[in-house]
Amino acid sequence: MMPLSGVPTPVEQVIRKMSANPSYPQSFSFDPGDPVFRAHEGGKIEVAPTKALRDRADLALLYTPGVADVSRAIAADPSLAARYTARSNTVAVITDGTAVLGLGDIGPLAALPVMEGKAVLFKHFGGVDAVPVCLETGTVEELVEAIVRLAPTFGGINLEDISAPRCFEIERQLRERLDIPVFHDDQHGTAIVALAALINAAKVVDKDLASLRVVVQGAGAAGVAVAKILVRAGIRDVVVCDSRGIISPTRTDLVEHKHRLAATTNPRGLSGSLVAALDGADVFIGVSGGQVAEQEIACMAPRAIIFALANPDPEVHPEVAARHAEVIATGRSDFPNQINNVLAFPGLFRGAFDSGAPQITEAMKLAAARAIASLVAEPTALEIMPSVFDERVAPTVAAAVAALA
Amino acid sequence: MMPLSGVPTPVEQVIRKMSANPSYPQSFSFDPGDPVFRAHEGGKIEVAPTKALRDRADLALLYTPGVADVSRAIAADPSLAARYTARSNTVAVITDGTAVLGLGDIGPLAALPVMEGKAVLFKHFGGVDAVPVCLETGTVEELVEAIVRLAPTFGGINLEDISAPRCFEIERQLRERLDIPVFHDDQHGTAIVALAALINAAKVVDKDLASLRVVVQGAGAAGVAVAKILVRAGIRDVVVCDSRGIISPTRTDLVEHKHRLAATTNPRGLSGSLVAALDGADVFIGVSGGQVAEQEIACMAPRAIIFALANPDPEVHPEVAARHAEVIATGRSDFPNQINNVLAFPGLFRGAFDSGAPQITEAMKLAAARAIASLVAEPTALEIMPSVFDERVAPTVAAAVAALA
Repeated sequence: MMPLSGVPTPVEQVIRKMSANPSYPQSFSFDPGDPVFRAHEGGKIEVAPTKALRDRADLALLYTPGVADVSRAIAADPSLAARYTARSNTVAVITDGTAVLGLGDIGPLAALPVMEGKAVLFKHFGGVDAVPVCLETGTVEELVEAIVRLAPTFGGINLEDISAPRCFEIERQLRERLDIPVFHDDQHGTAIVALAALINAAKVVDKDLASLRVVVQGAGAAGVAVAKILVRAGIRDVVVCDSRGIISPTRTDLVEHKHRLAATTNPRGLSGSLVAALDGADVFIGVSGGQVAEQEIACMAPRAIIFALANPDPEVHPEVAARHAEVIATGRSDFPNQINNVLAFPGLFRGAFDSGAPQITEAMKLAAARAIASLVAEPTALEIMPSVFDERVAPTVAAAVAALA
Repeated sequence: MMPLSGVPTPVEQVIRKMSANPSYPQSFSFDPGDPVFRAHEGGKIEVAPTKALRDRADLALLYTPGVADVSRAIAADPSLAARYTARSNTVAVITDGTAVLGLGDIGPLAALPVMEGKAVLFKHFGGVDAVPVCLETGTVEELVEAIVRLAPTFGGINLEDISAPRCFEIERQLRERLDIPVFHDDQHGTAIVALAALINAAKVVDKDLASLRVVVQGAGAAGVAVAKILVRAGIRDVVVCDSRGIISPTRTDLVEHKHRLAATTNPRGLSGSLVAALDGADVFIGVSGGQVAEQEIACMAPRAIIFALANPDPEVHPEVAARHAEVIATGRSDFPNQINNVLAFPGLFRGAFDSGAPQITEAMKLAAARAIASLVAEPTALEIMPSVFDERVAPTVAAAVAALA
């Protein structure tokens, strides 16, 4: 879709207009009077009683001596904890602050505002009680031990902003050792919404999903999970690139998780740089945080799809992408087609909690993606995703997930 | 104060009437229709947003992209976390479930209803956000490591229902390693309210506080802390007994914390059984969970004071105690003079948080006890403590604590 020079397409026009939105802070400065800082005064969450405490009778019911009977009942039958505590509706949002947003390793304390924000979203969209847990970082084993030790408190674990490749092993070990859902949102939340967006984008460009040639740029937490879910969704030709180019079995520099990727992707055995992968590709999905030059995407197939998901700076600016693709999506709210994890995680945990699922399965993730996609009845280039404020999203995802538990 | 046989004193009359209160469950049974279990359906707390999330503009302020600036600001200046997160008003209520109420080692999951109840009390009385954290138990070192690792999340640590003597070492190490208040409520909360009660009870029986002969029965978490605070408050003659009798330097069977007790209490060098200690004593404070026979307390001094704090079964039933003492207190709400930690911990953390205190000092504990005692203008045998619903308590304690920060 090469537009005539100087005559912007409708998509380009919308992107130009939206990107003039002045509410998006491009650079950092600490100004206590700034709306962002004013909105954060005192933090964003509280722990509130759900039962009235009016008098001694209430005190005797909710605390001693009454509570002793509830404790004794749970000691005798642990399954009663789901009914008589908040545990079965409570998820720990756990980070060590090593990969926060696009900011990198800023530590657990500086990660806390993000985890509180996540807790606000969990409650608002999913009715899920979320407790931020910011851990001093350590080895994989130390973090796993700490999380296993505090697991009796929670009905689920949402891992967040933990650097790759540690995040893969931490999640794997926790899934093995715990009987509650463990979900690394940077991996699977991103993968679910990317797949949902791609399902609808394929309809817009009138191409068969399974036959798409997809290039994923980035082989960190998000890239690995996106590639995996696309393969699992039936897409046969997925190629992943890292900063050194196409991931293929001929590479001798691959760490373990990339080695596994090489075995399950890149069916045509490509090697070389990103541009070699993009030659004739239908889809570019950027989850790298890096930048991609216009000439690299210029060789994509007609009616191309570009998801440039890095925040705050997309790998390709949507105005540039629009010169070479028909459907463009980003992670930002100030461009069309925001691909935002908040479409997935609240409904996903809602569904897992409602059904008492002991884990989030691969089938549940696929079902969640399809549920999100289904909410846009007639996708267009400017609307492949439901709004994050579409109240149908979380219940629809929850129902799809719970049906598989 | 030996009453005439068959002619109950006014205190005895009140105790008989109150102990007929049928709301106190004496034995355990699981009945989903029971008011206690109905009150616990779904748990007792939630994590609620404190800021409105109405539209994309709110989302951009409270979550991405806005939150990135707050994280960057805290990374540059960690002290800003106190202002821009909920951390500085949030306490972790941490247990491993090894000494829950009087129930013993029932494990972390069964302890959760108690921790949720504590969170309700923290918020209701102190405006403090409290997060239950129930840890799989382990060695002292393992628990300390787990708690240190999650400390970045919290502005304070309230340890709860951790068995002695592990609790002493865990608290000591945490106080050394963390720069936030660490407070083991079973020790210091109990000690503060016991001292508050004793200050007013001494007034009722018209005896000088410092000159009282006090016997503490029980050398676990509460007994050790009660003995310590009484000594620190200036009471010269404090004798502690465990199940083997008086703790004195001549005993060869003492573990470390009892050895330290032997060095700081028992100035007359008593040895022998509880009854040897009680001979002529002014005060009996039971924090043992055991039972004390009537003949053992019969030898106390005239105008004696008995605090039988074991829950749910006081060491001496108040009706029995009333035959030998002028002031009787228990841990229960269905007798006069309830000695309840809830009088201390909400105001204590409120004061520490308001003043940004990096720890709870011994001076703060004494000040808290005196503040609680001060709220009963004219103590009587039936009213030595303010009501737990007296709205002056937490602010008065908080102000006294904050003044020392």
